Amino acid sequence: MAFNGVTDEMYARVQHFYAHQMQALDALRFEEYAATFTKDGTFQHSPGVEPAVGHDGIVAELVAFHRRFDDDPVRRRHWFDHIALTPLADGALRSTVYALVVTVRPGGRPEIAPSCLVHDELVVEDGDVRLRSRRIEHDQMF
Amino acid sequence: MAFNGVTDEMYARVQHFYAHQMQALDALRFEEYAATFTKDGTFQHSPGVEPAVGHDGIVAELVAFHRRFDDDPVRRRHWFDHIALTPLADGALRSTVYALVVTVRPGGRPEIAPSCLVHDELVVEDGDVRLRSRRIEHDQMF
Amino acid sequence: MAFNGVTDEMYARVQHFYAHQMQALDALRFEEYAATFTKDGTFQHSPGVEPAVGHDGIVAELVAFHRRFDDDPVRRRHWFDHIALTPLADGALRSTVYALVVTVRPGGRPEIAPSCLVHDELVVEDGDVRLRSRRIEHDQMF
Repeated sequence: MAFNGVTDEMYARVQHFYAHQMQALDALRFEEYAATFTKDGTFQHSPGVEPAVGHDGIVAELVAFHRRFDDDPVRRRHWFDHIALTPLADGALRSTVYALVVTVRPGGRPEIAPSCLVHDELVVEDGDVRLRSRRIEHDQMF
Repeated sequence: MAFNGVTDEMYARVQHFYAHQMQALDALRFEEYAATFTKDGTFQHSPGVEPAVGHDGIVAELVAFHRRFDDDPVRRRHWFDHIALTPLADGALRSTVYALVVTVRPGGRPEIAPSCLVHDELVVEDGDVRLRSRRIEHDQMF
Repeated sequence: MAFNGVTDEMYARVQHFYAHQMQALDALRFEEYAATFTKDGTFQHSPGVEPAVGHDGIVAELVAFHRRFDDDPVRRRHWFDHIALTPLADGALRSTVYALVVTVRPGGRPEIAPSCLVHDELVVEDGDVRLRSRRIEHDQMF
């Protein structure tokens, strides 16, 4: 059975894909995160920033972005909720997801900001889920 | 296979139903939100408020409720967690869900309040999931 | 189909298992929570604390831990996100999960702390999911 044209099995699979993908990002395993994209996948992590393209491009962008935390003992976790999937005409899936960034420093309390909307396009290649694009919208900018 | 008398497929389907339903509510697509209820479905969004009944009643209640935000540039997102389903004797499903309301204003930080417990009853009509009732309990009132 | 060696059905089932398990814990139904562990299951809820062992041991530990709230009208909810499963060599599943503790007092606003990482090992016994071990890591301690 299905909801909104997406099988129940695929829905569970996409959730599981995101769990591993985002734990990889938050653990700074950037190669593993980049490998969740297609070869020419695009990743725009912040509004107004040029999207990174391809695995090498995504890794380079993440390394550059995280330099700001070099002297900041910080742990970040990206929480997701309400993964809403919609089939596209070419067989891909549009995925729209709520996100909150949880930031923790030693001895501190979690800061929960910003609130974001994740706009993904997912493809299934040989049974494997991959992102062909990700664009992040920030709720505070409107 | 199943857990607590609910198949794994149905569990994934209910999660996906909620994702689209709550994104519709938060995007102020009230007609779409109301259509996720059965024709005579009831929706009590706050304790002590009379439940709205039926699609027109639910839309009217949401329009009235949201007037308080007319001069307030606010974006609200209802997060859900731990969707616990239990079959009822008549074939419906009781669903008990944690909820947090994330409120964002331009340039601000997310406010996360209140914490709620969602009490739903779900039915499956011709393969489609529908709410026949929703009642919200607020954690801060006890 | 599957992701990371775990079927889509099993992924949905584990999510549903967690929903009921954690709602039992937060509602202080300690016997029900303990019954989600195997007979000799271990539960270490805080770093540096000796793990509780077995159903009776887990109940006793929870009763002792919650005495701190005897004069504190508090409601706690453990939120989970990004459940990442990996099969182990013996057929069990390793489960790594993000957690946030939401604490509410009458008339107050939710406090969201601490942020944790949950390290579980799950087994399936006669179709039933059970925890054989749970260990909680706190993000603020690093």
